[in-house]
Amino acid sequence: MNHLEIYLASRKQKLAYQYALWLLSWDQETETPEGAMQYRSDQIEVLSTLAYEVEMDSKRIEAIDFLATHPESLTDDLKVEIKRVKKDLDQLRKIPKQEYIDFQVLLSSAGHIWSNAKKNNDFASYLPTLEKVITYQRKLVKYLATDTVKGYDVLLDLYEPGMTVVDYDHFFNTLKTDLVPFVLKASKVKQTLTRKLTKGHFPKAAQIAFNTYLLSVFKYDQSKGVLKQSAHPFTSGVASVDTRITTAYHEDDLRSAIFSTIHEMGHAIYEQQVKPEYDYTELKGGVSMGIHESQSRFYENMIGRSDAFWDVHYEKLVETSPKQFKGITKDAFVKYINQVKRDFIRVEADELTYSLHVMVRYEIEKQLFNGKLKAKDLPKVWNRLYRQYLGLTPKTDTKGVLQDIHWAFGSFGYFPTYALGSAISAQIYHRMNQDFHIESVVRENNIQRINQWLKEHIHQYGKTIEPKDLIIQSTQEPFNPQYYVTYLKEKYTKILGMEA
Amino acid sequence: MNHLEIYLASRKQKLAYQYALWLLSWDQETETPEGAMQYRSDQIEVLSTLAYEVEMDSKRIEAIDFLATHPESLTDDLKVEIKRVKKDLDQLRKIPKQEYIDFQVLLSSAGHIWSNAKKNNDFASYLPTLEKVITYQRKLVKYLATDTVKGYDVLLDLYEPGMTVVDYDHFFNTLKTDLVPFVLKASKVKQTLTRKLTKGHFPKAAQIAFNTYLLSVFKYDQSKGVLKQSAHPFTSGVASVDTRITTAYHEDDLRSAIFSTIHEMGHAIYEQQVKPEYDYTELKGGVSMGIHESQSRFYENMIGRSDAFWDVHYEKLVETSPKQFKGITKDAFVKYINQVKRDFIRVEADELTYSLHVMVRYEIEKQLFNGKLKAKDLPKVWNRLYRQYLGLTPKTDTKGVLQDIHWAFGSFGYFPTYALGSAISAQIYHRMNQDFHIESVVRENNIQRINQWLKEHIHQYGKTIEPKDLIIQSTQEPFNPQYYVTYLKEKYTKILGMEA
Repeated sequence: MNHLEIYLASRKQKLAYQYALWLLSWDQETETPEGAMQYRSDQIEVLSTLAYEVEMDSKRIEAIDFLATHPESLTDDLKVEIKRVKKDLDQLRKIPKQEYIDFQVLLSSAGHIWSNAKKNNDFASYLPTLEKVITYQRKLVKYLATDTVKGYDVLLDLYEPGMTVVDYDHFFNTLKTDLVPFVLKASKVKQTLTRKLTKGHFPKAAQIAFNTYLLSVFKYDQSKGVLKQSAHPFTSGVASVDTRITTAYHEDDLRSAIFSTIHEMGHAIYEQQVKPEYDYTELKGGVSMGIHESQSRFYENMIGRSDAFWDVHYEKLVETSPKQFKGITKDAFVKYINQVKRDFIRVEADELTYSLHVMVRYEIEKQLFNGKLKAKDLPKVWNRLYRQYLGLTPKTDTKGVLQDIHWAFGSFGYFPTYALGSAISAQIYHRMNQDFHIESVVRENNIQRINQWLKEHIHQYGKTIEPKDLIIQSTQEPFNPQYYVTYLKEKYTKILGMEA
Repeated sequence: MNHLEIYLASRKQKLAYQYALWLLSWDQETETPEGAMQYRSDQIEVLSTLAYEVEMDSKRIEAIDFLATHPESLTDDLKVEIKRVKKDLDQLRKIPKQEYIDFQVLLSSAGHIWSNAKKNNDFASYLPTLEKVITYQRKLVKYLATDTVKGYDVLLDLYEPGMTVVDYDHFFNTLKTDLVPFVLKASKVKQTLTRKLTKGHFPKAAQIAFNTYLLSVFKYDQSKGVLKQSAHPFTSGVASVDTRITTAYHEDDLRSAIFSTIHEMGHAIYEQQVKPEYDYTELKGGVSMGIHESQSRFYENMIGRSDAFWDVHYEKLVETSPKQFKGITKDAFVKYINQVKRDFIRVEADELTYSLHVMVRYEIEKQLFNGKLKAKDLPKVWNRLYRQYLGLTPKTDTKGVLQDIHWAFGSFGYFPTYALGSAISAQIYHRMNQDFHIESVVRENNIQRINQWLKEHIHQYGKTIEPKDLIIQSTQEPFNPQYYVTYLKEKYTKILGMEA
């Protein structure tokens, strides 16, 4: 076999293992009975080892190294794929195998330790583990550093290739200058919300009916996915033909399921609309966390929380829960789903304040990897930054530094993509709106038109175009956070009845 | 590594592949979106090939061959396991690899061809495929034949080790002599059934509520399994800690889901109660198809269709569907679920006539492999045997020879275990009844007592005791079909109000 044949044969095996491990993970979150967790985990360990052996097979590595330096005979898609695979491989090779394994072992218990610490508001019990995770991440940064990418940039690049501290500083400084003062002003506006909604009870069966209805409204392709329930909503895609989503129903707050479902559909429609021929390659799926989040936020906020959307669909919601919505106008409902409230918890934050939560985490991570911040000082710094950006001090670490699982998983550099995605979605909205009037299309219940635009300009490309280039190609300019600030200010000035 | 270490390492991998393929199959039947079928099938092909390579690895084979001839240092369980694995391996080695692959390819389209033929009542379109399957099976018989096991016995042994034509002839002759005349007599008794049941409509939601209730009645361990829905009910177990079941709801016949759920729970409780330490070995799961079916039939018929059972649970059923059951007595319901009707379709057959359907298939298979019967003559022979045993002639092949998928899957030798299992369950019932009065235990809603007995005498052993020995050990005597005939005659004489 020549180099290309060797590569293609190993890719086939790698994707098959990936598929099996993907399904095991989906099943774990949605169905595996409690008593089977250990058995499943033992099987995953064996399958992961087998998959790792395929990935690190010397013949495969030799083939990739060769093809990366002799790309002439490759198709354009294969050139991109080999470049991507080579980058991953080079990174993996730079990490000493034993350290990599030790870190995986550390992670396997870290989530549990974090979860207990959060439950007991006991940061001290989590600190030794967190310190070990950070120590490994700092070593990782050194291993993966190149001439041009160093320090925190190494971690940022893992989640959003091409984005650096310089880029993110520019982004977050824009928010600090333009958005933080506006949020302060906005949060002083008195919002009157009906108790029937804020203190209501919304039976699950009715919620399921409405969320199922949403699948068809958004044209989520149910021949290529399913909607199930799980403790925390997520999207799990393995290929364009199988991208599944979950939501979670809370009977005291029906917004939760609705906007989770729409958010996850955004992720899923992205992956469903990647060119199907990429399903058998490493080019399937979304290109980066930021672009992915731009899609989920676009659907959730720009469409799902818009006045236009509820002009069409409010009636259906009332129909599924007539008693609960008796006497409540559509306008009151739209106010309710766009309520502004500076609060402690990121995942419960409203659209306006969301990115400020992310900013706190970005500042901390930057200081951890580019500065001298120590893990033991995290609660102090956390609370100081919450006062600074959101004007409030968490009363407990549970509602503060312990709220997110990400760091226990070693995911440093991930958080900023949440805010970045939200900002990119505003830039996409601006550009799309020049091709057609989005609100009108939403009022015509023609979301397929929006799906089509996103497919044409973003989705279809899968992983073939780097995020920064994809933004330029789809919006005709580089990432520009001003669209986001403008969008938020205009929207909330109107909703809150503020003076422009 | 020594031989044992090599074997144990390969077993670990084999079980991991088995786990992945098990989950893929479960997901396919219960969840995989339609559009993902081809992709899934492609991944299964790769994973199956990888699993086959592990199984046929020369070092592993050498280790098994060595351990089989040098079992002295092995534990008792490992001795049994090596003997089993060696038997499977020897069989696999006797089949020319290319023929094996060609047969798998043939099977991959045979199910579809059968399904179309059944739909269109077109046996001729299926005949060429069926002929090829039979030709392969005849060759298989020759490859696998030993000095003591030949002809149809080879196939029978694949599903019920130790059972031969001599054994089955004895069994079915007992049925022909003792049961067939009784069925003829019984089917002449006029049964009055209320139209409210036979022509009723039973909403799915209420059925789900009652079937979920049944899980706790039978103490199906929901921490080690789940109940879902699928087109055809089945049990899918990978280990004692994860044995899942499905049922299917039909709004025009609520018996269907109830007795499918109980039947599948019988299979599942068996596998859940195997010693958990066998989960990581080849000794997990049920020992044979016949023993497995004896458990499912025991729960379905001996418990689920008994008067005692509905004395306790009829009230709950009425509670879930008060309108549907208004004015219907428990006795009327018990008559309904034990209705006797000679009919064409095996899977819809009542308890009394069920084994006669199986007998037809056994006679045909015997003539195919020990006689001169040709595939093209199957419809003719089928209809003749239905006249002989059930007194009726199928009007179409769809309701006749085309009704079951088994032969399209190459499963010859499988059918007899269905009747055998039913008969074994009666022998178990007889023996258990000497330890405690089963009806009383059922009336006390203490099915856990029954589960415990079956665990102690049958379930816990997994695959460590050969079926014939297991019957002797658990019932104190070899398989004796007379218990089955006696049980059926007593039950139906009473239910139909016949003279004893």
